[in-house]
Amino acid sequence: MKIGVIMGSTSDLEVMQAAFDTLTEFGVEFEKRVISAHRAPHLLCQWAESAADRGIGAIIAGAGGAAHLAGVTAAYTTLPVIGVPIYSKSFGGMDALLATVQMPSGIPVATVAVNGAKNAAILAIEILALQDADLRQKLKEFRQKQTSKIENTVI
Amino acid sequence: MKIGVIMGSTSDLEVMQAAFDTLTEFGVEFEKRVISAHRAPHLLCQWAESAADRGIGAIIAGAGGAAHLAGVTAAYTTLPVIGVPIYSKSFGGMDALLATVQMPSGIPVATVAVNGAKNAAILAIEILALQDADLRQKLKEFRQKQTSKIENTVI
Amino acid sequence: MKIGVIMGSTSDLEVMQAAFDTLTEFGVEFEKRVISAHRAPHLLCQWAESAADRGIGAIIAGAGGAAHLAGVTAAYTTLPVIGVPIYSKSFGGMDALLATVQMPSGIPVATVAVNGAKNAAILAIEILALQDADLRQKLKEFRQKQTSKIENTVI
Amino acid sequence: MKIGVIMGSTSDLEVMQAAFDTLTEFGVEFEKRVISAHRAPHLLCQWAESAADRGIGAIIAGAGGAAHLAGVTAAYTTLPVIGVPIYSKSFGGMDALLATVQMPSGIPVATVAVNGAKNAAILAIEILALQDADLRQKLKEFRQKQTSKIENTVI
Amino acid sequence: MKIGVIMGSTSDLEVMQAAFDTLTEFGVEFEKRVISAHRAPHLLCQWAESAADRGIGAIIAGAGGAAHLAGVTAAYTTLPVIGVPIYSKSFGGMDALLATVQMPSGIPVATVAVNGAKNAAILAIEILALQDADLRQKLKEFRQKQTSKIENTVI
Amino acid sequence: MKIGVIMGSTSDLEVMQAAFDTLTEFGVEFEKRVISAHRAPHLLCQWAESAADRGIGAIIAGAGGAAHLAGVTAAYTTLPVIGVPIYSKSFGGMDALLATVQMPSGIPVATVAVNGAKNAAILAIEILALQDADLRQKLKEFRQKQTSKIENTVI
Amino acid sequence: MKIGVIMGSTSDLEVMQAAFDTLTEFGVEFEKRVISAHRAPHLLCQWAESAADRGIGAIIAGAGGAAHLAGVTAAYTTLPVIGVPIYSKSFGGMDALLATVQMPSGIPVATVAVNGAKNAAILAIEILALQDADLRQKLKEFRQKQTSKIENTVI
Amino acid sequence: MKIGVIMGSTSDLEVMQAAFDTLTEFGVEFEKRVISAHRAPHLLCQWAESAADRGIGAIIAGAGGAAHLAGVTAAYTTLPVIGVPIYSKSFGGMDALLATVQMPSGIPVATVAVNGAKNAAILAIEILALQDADLRQKLKEFRQKQTSKIENTVI
Repeated sequence: MKIGVIMGSTSDLEVMQAAFDTLTEFGVEFEKRVISAHRAPHLLCQWAESAADRGIGAIIAGAGGAAHLAGVTAAYTTLPVIGVPIYSKSFGGMDALLATVQMPSGIPVATVAVNGAKNAAILAIEILALQDADLRQKLKEFRQKQTSKIENTVI
Repeated sequence: MKIGVIMGSTSDLEVMQAAFDTLTEFGVEFEKRVISAHRAPHLLCQWAESAADRGIGAIIAGAGGAAHLAGVTAAYTTLPVIGVPIYSKSFGGMDALLATVQMPSGIPVATVAVNGAKNAAILAIEILALQDADLRQKLKEFRQKQTSKIENTVI
Repeated sequence: MKIGVIMGSTSDLEVMQAAFDTLTEFGVEFEKRVISAHRAPHLLCQWAESAADRGIGAIIAGAGGAAHLAGVTAAYTTLPVIGVPIYSKSFGGMDALLATVQMPSGIPVATVAVNGAKNAAILAIEILALQDADLRQKLKEFRQKQTSKIENTVI
Repeated sequence: MKIGVIMGSTSDLEVMQAAFDTLTEFGVEFEKRVISAHRAPHLLCQWAESAADRGIGAIIAGAGGAAHLAGVTAAYTTLPVIGVPIYSKSFGGMDALLATVQMPSGIPVATVAVNGAKNAAILAIEILALQDADLRQKLKEFRQKQTSKIENTVI
Repeated sequence: MKIGVIMGSTSDLEVMQAAFDTLTEFGVEFEKRVISAHRAPHLLCQWAESAADRGIGAIIAGAGGAAHLAGVTAAYTTLPVIGVPIYSKSFGGMDALLATVQMPSGIPVATVAVNGAKNAAILAIEILALQDADLRQKLKEFRQKQTSKIENTVI
Repeated sequence: MKIGVIMGSTSDLEVMQAAFDTLTEFGVEFEKRVISAHRAPHLLCQWAESAADRGIGAIIAGAGGAAHLAGVTAAYTTLPVIGVPIYSKSFGGMDALLATVQMPSGIPVATVAVNGAKNAAILAIEILALQDADLRQKLKEFRQKQTSKIENTVI
Repeated sequence: MKIGVIMGSTSDLEVMQAAFDTLTEFGVEFEKRVISAHRAPHLLCQWAESAADRGIGAIIAGAGGAAHLAGVTAAYTTLPVIGVPIYSKSFGGMDALLATVQMPSGIPVATVAVNGAKNAAILAIEILALQDADLRQKLKEFRQKQTSKIENTVI
Repeated sequence: MKIGVIMGSTSDLEVMQAAFDTLTEFGVEFEKRVISAHRAPHLLCQWAESAADRGIGAIIAGAGGAAHLAGVTAAYTTLPVIGVPIYSKSFGGMDALLATVQMPSGIPVATVAVNGAKNAAILAIEILALQDADLRQKLKEFRQKQTSKIENTVI
């Protein structure tokens, strides 16, 4: 299974790169695409409805402002959809956070921190790892390395 | 021309009723429908894309929480779309307000106050009135009555 | 019909320029003026009350802080008034957003995103397009171009 | 000198009553009136521009939501204008607070707490007391009584 | 695979019941337990570290205030952890939302809406459904029923 | 009568300078001093209690963060106290605004905008002008100049 | 050593009672008093400056709105001062929280949760327990009981 | 007795340095360490549970975002725990403030201002000073110096 990563604008690329890097680091295949819920709604519908058939197991969607991308994607698929609210100057990402997380009953979006693209990737990997012992092992090592780094930090 | 009024859930009906009442008071014809951007995305697409052909001149969309209804509607039509953020207990409607108003460049939503269904109707009427002298006269009288009421209030 | 664009201060000009550019791009005529609701209230009254007679079909008003410009303009006319809350350092435009959008029943303001001058212009054009087939065609092309740009983006 | 007290709506009367009570308690004469900045803008202009000539020394203006009343009043007079932001369900009065306090340079509004009508009256009295020894004495006694009440509270 | 559902206090039970109901409706087995990150940290450690070995595939953690439950659980396991911020009177759940969603890089929490226990369950089911064709079918039917209900609503 | 201007820290001087400039421009005498409600509470008590006797007619107090300066000053005098909330990086001055404006019944603070030192000075001048025809004339001219500047702005 | 508990108003008593109950439960002696930083500033000065001499080891101060009580108390003593922000309708206690916690460098206030009077008492007990083995034992038992209660909860 | 100072990440070091400086200035011994509640939970448990036995009298914990460090530390010890919310770009530290201060009944955290590391150290010193006459004297002198500096400031 692979991960689908979409974002609402090329301006989100700088933040979303962290997701690509993390998926690559774990050797997880992914599709990436700029798709706007507002400027390309038919493309989004088509992309999301066919995602499962293309072998995608979870979708990461990053958007800012009135961030509808993750929510509308979730409307078109029953795959787990992970939303990354993108920081913006006016409200620091509060608009994107609320527009992503406050979904109505029936259509969940798994929301991570503002600009949390790396964690979105790790969450996607945790989901795939449920059926992939190799990924589970990699996650375990990732965590151990992370813990060791803290344990060995001297200030 | 008529007005299309949609809302994300039957629970929004109590708030949106004020729009129906105002449109009725001004003698403006309207369609009304519950359509969820998340639970019925194809219906929304079809309803919004055909709205202009059905004689609709402006759309009022009321939704709460991660309120995507107005924004996604606007993605499917170039008719003016008026968003009514609906109050909810957690954030008093701040989630719906930000999710409605903070639209990206290219796809505007004309946002009114939280629970501002009456004003959404008046705004829609102001838009139709640009080409309808009778409505302009009714708006003028509505305003005069409103002003007189204030002027004659004794406390 | 033309569009009237006003702003509370010359410091808003940098943001509001996007409205002028968009109106120009669509070939829509507009008036522009700095008018403060607080520092030039009589000028505002006179400008707004005579706007319809000068052939204005919709008004765009940009202001920051305790942004009263759009609301007070709306008090003097039944033309559709579009409010653009302007970003400011203290609250990121939240003050201007709330002061613009939370209008009392009877006097609506069509509020767009913080610094959303471009979308204000598009909304104004959508309103004029209801009675202008040429503008409708331009909006359609604008949307298609916007969609194509997304569809053809490769990252 | 007397105090002018205005409010945007009869629904504000319950909150503003505390101002009347306090002014009455101090024996300060006052005018009271419902005037909306949006629904009766000409009345507001006329009332505010003539306030000083009617013997008013300070104005108290209570309003909720996009509370423009105090700010627009201040635009029409150089008398001190005291703004009382009124609580509302959506944002607890944050909208009214920001719309009242964040005035642009040149036109100040002396803002008190949300629903702070009593303090608005005391502030107005403090202003009049600068040229009224009797009021100064009453303020002194008011404070002493207030302090004694605290000092004698046993819990 | 089953789902583990924990909450910080018995007072959260009323909200979290919706998760139990939904899991039951889908025929998904679950463990449920009150565990506080602050009042029973060793129990949490032991419960979370052994969760995978007990056959748990995803964990739902509901907590209010300084909601540390989901984040600390995520620190002890690489299973997907879904956080449900619980509403509280002071800040409407904003405290729990931020304390749940703003996790540091390396340890994600999949956050749903304030009081979004039902969606937490659906998200958990979506995750399990990746390797369970029967659950996928049930999700599909759940969605269709949900859509039909909207489509058949007449107001 | 003169104006007393105090601030909580020398770091507030850059903002408060606008008050000095405005008072100077209007020819109003003023005292200025750094006094912290927390680091020099006895000095504050002494300064505030003797302010009226030193010929001060209104006090301007600028402070940031948990801005107690204006409120505590008001506790020691019945002169009108004008609070200037100072911007700070964390909350943009929201902490100072709420700590200044939300005073309990009995002790008002006349709060102006975040960093609104110039308006604090104008408000103080409006208060003094009630008993000073020359200041009233200067205020009138200040306003006219301000209005003319707007009226003559061409963009 | 005993604990001093003060609050800004008798209306805070309902919340602060939890502190009295907890201190009583632990057998810790305490003084209690209503003292307002604004309405009884001299009493506060005198009470706080003499607190250490009266055998007080830590002070708990509860206040709402522009909550200056804890901060001003801290200005008069070098005893640890624990602030309890009290909930209020407008901003849910955010005003009191920011006015209590955002103290300037040099004068700290140990702030607990909104309405967190019980935790304020426990914190005060933790401080006294540093030099009181009996209190340390009681705290240990309190914690164990608290943990057991969670461990034995069946839902 | 000494002070334990921990922080969630080396990126917090710049802010927390002020605590080290202040403790050093007062001649108070301290331990310092980077420990993450999420990335090194076992280390945190072990460090916090043994803190009292290592002679630590109070703990300062600085963390940003979903700042769980202080709260989880408090779960493992009955020593007073002082939380320092660290500023971050998105919400200016509001996330860390709420995640630190809104602790549930039973486990208090003494929270100081965003980035208030210096005040955290002073608070810790105030706690130790209860049983250390030398520290009490140093605090007194620190305060006097602080007051003198204000009193002698000329602007």
